[in-house]
Amino acid sequence: MNLPRTIEWLDGRVRLINQLKLPHTLEYVETDDWRRIAKAIENMEIRGAPAIGVAAGYALALAALSYGGEDAEEFKGFLDNVASALLKTRPTAVNLSWAVKRIRRRVAKLVDVDEIRRAVLEEAEDIRREDEESNKRIGDLGERLIEDGDTVITICNAGSLATSYYGTATAPIYRSVERGKEVRVIVLETRPYLQGARLTAWELSRAGIDVRVVTDNSMGIVVQKEDVRIALVGADRVTRLGYVANKVGTYPLALVCFDNRIPLYVAAPTSTLDHEISWPEEIEIERRSEKEVLYIYGHRIAPMGVRGLYYAFDITPPKYITGIITERGIAYPPYERSLRRFKNKP
Amino acid sequence: MNLPRTIEWLDGRVRLINQLKLPHTLEYVETDDWRRIAKAIENMEIRGAPAIGVAAGYALALAALSYGGEDAEEFKGFLDNVASALLKTRPTAVNLSWAVKRIRRRVAKLVDVDEIRRAVLEEAEDIRREDEESNKRIGDLGERLIEDGDTVITICNAGSLATSYYGTATAPIYRSVERGKEVRVIVLETRPYLQGARLTAWELSRAGIDVRVVTDNSMGIVVQKEDVRIALVGADRVTRLGYVANKVGTYPLALVCFDNRIPLYVAAPTSTLDHEISWPEEIEIERRSEKEVLYIYGHRIAPMGVRGLYYAFDITPPKYITGIITERGIAYPPYERSLRRFKNKP
Repeated sequence: MNLPRTIEWLDGRVRLINQLKLPHTLEYVETDDWRRIAKAIENMEIRGAPAIGVAAGYALALAALSYGGEDAEEFKGFLDNVASALLKTRPTAVNLSWAVKRIRRRVAKLVDVDEIRRAVLEEAEDIRREDEESNKRIGDLGERLIEDGDTVITICNAGSLATSYYGTATAPIYRSVERGKEVRVIVLETRPYLQGARLTAWELSRAGIDVRVVTDNSMGIVVQKEDVRIALVGADRVTRLGYVANKVGTYPLALVCFDNRIPLYVAAPTSTLDHEISWPEEIEIERRSEKEVLYIYGHRIAPMGVRGLYYAFDITPPKYITGIITERGIAYPPYERSLRRFKNKP
Repeated sequence: MNLPRTIEWLDGRVRLINQLKLPHTLEYVETDDWRRIAKAIENMEIRGAPAIGVAAGYALALAALSYGGEDAEEFKGFLDNVASALLKTRPTAVNLSWAVKRIRRRVAKLVDVDEIRRAVLEEAEDIRREDEESNKRIGDLGERLIEDGDTVITICNAGSLATSYYGTATAPIYRSVERGKEVRVIVLETRPYLQGARLTAWELSRAGIDVRVVTDNSMGIVVQKEDVRIALVGADRVTRLGYVANKVGTYPLALVCFDNRIPLYVAAPTSTLDHEISWPEEIEIERRSEKEVLYIYGHRIAPMGVRGLYYAFDITPPKYITGIITERGIAYPPYERSLRRFKNKP
């Protein structure tokens, strides 16, 4: 596979694909300002839990490069402020806080400014590299679930664009195609941002894969009529018990798959696992502006005066999830036990 | 309630609301040409199973008025040709064939041109009047299921605009409000035509009812977070065993309601019941052009070259339906028995 790089470190600058411009224009944001990265996360120019984690790491790296002082404690205080600003951009994605925590932990005991700066840069690059490796591993594990000729359904973009490379839910598809299997993909368009139609369809078709776009509400009839064999979705956060927060629509898709005896697998790097929470009530569901629902390409879809509601995620209970593919193995129910194995680094 | 008239007979002409122009413009189509009505059905300027039935009746009435000959058999042959053309416009809606059959049956034994013409006009007007009466009755039966302060969820437009007046799924809401209950409504936007956002939100807000629009994929989290108490949906066709063909998205909504123990009622005048078929495989699911999915307000949402798929309906199995509200009573499971009561006119 030769996929475009979602986000890259270019010797003191960060370059990322502006995903709001896809699928018709491939345009990059290139900056040495960490605030521009924070804005890109908030605006959804970059999105997808793992990519947000990488972006947060790089934002801290840019911040570290920009620090001109010589006081290590002041430097760490500055990095803490940057970290706080980053954490406010998107509340649901666990990778954001995970990346920030990881870098903070790395520099906690360091007392030299240059050493801290170097450590932040290294850790940020490690986050990116490990993400790519883990996606490849998810791909290799998930590839075994796909047979030649299968039709896969997915939602949103848990693709290469949502990560540093290969994607999570798409990795098994890319690895299957690399091994010569024919795979067809149906992607839910994923309102309101249309990440399925704009991003997943873009990256899969660019890779030569047969992909078709359907409206979100047609998930049921499409699964029945199009001989769908497996659903692969991403995850923004997975609890200890296997509740999965992901792009809104994942939960009804899981119900549809369950009702039609089609396996649904969640592709989730272990960085997405949140062992500190168990139940859906503990997951904060991001609500975004109603305007994002009420306007499409500048056209208001509802009468003036009518309100909208926009929950950006939903939560799928573990009983509707066939398995959770991590880079360290596939977890099967009961998840409390199977996910625990992935709690600590080997 | 003072709702605008979806379709009216105006002394030899038909006037109907052009629903493609809503919600920002209230514009009418007025014609004395049956072919213009056929086009309006095909284009979805008028839509909704009962409204399509009324429109088909009026189209035959216009055709009957336009016939200048004096041969009763030739006249009936002409009406048959018109009927065939009408039946091709939208295959899934049973009301279309039901209205056409009803008028054909009415004129079958008549031998006088004037008598046939008068009979067609009368029967067409009877179809409209009975539709309004049956919706009012559905409203009165369904009103008892709604409590003061309840939040109702619905999909698409099974509203006044989908019928001649009051609507089917909306009738219990309008009747509840008329009786002083406060009712809040959440409507799924209903891609690709956005009938929920454009039509249901328009007619409910015009009637002073609190209505909020959500994306179709958010049905799950919205039902959980917004204290939804009941789902009310329409039906394009109901089989003998209670399988319900309705706007695509109804089936996942039913799964969501079932999983959250929220009752889902289908509002379906008995004209929507098809006692001749039992199983989902017997229902033809209309497929429409992929362009209707791939373009929104002229903007292509997916990369060039990527295909779309558009199934306009789905089928909800009876096990996920709490009850079916007809104008003759509410049917509860097992539907094979309860719907049989409504097979013949009383």
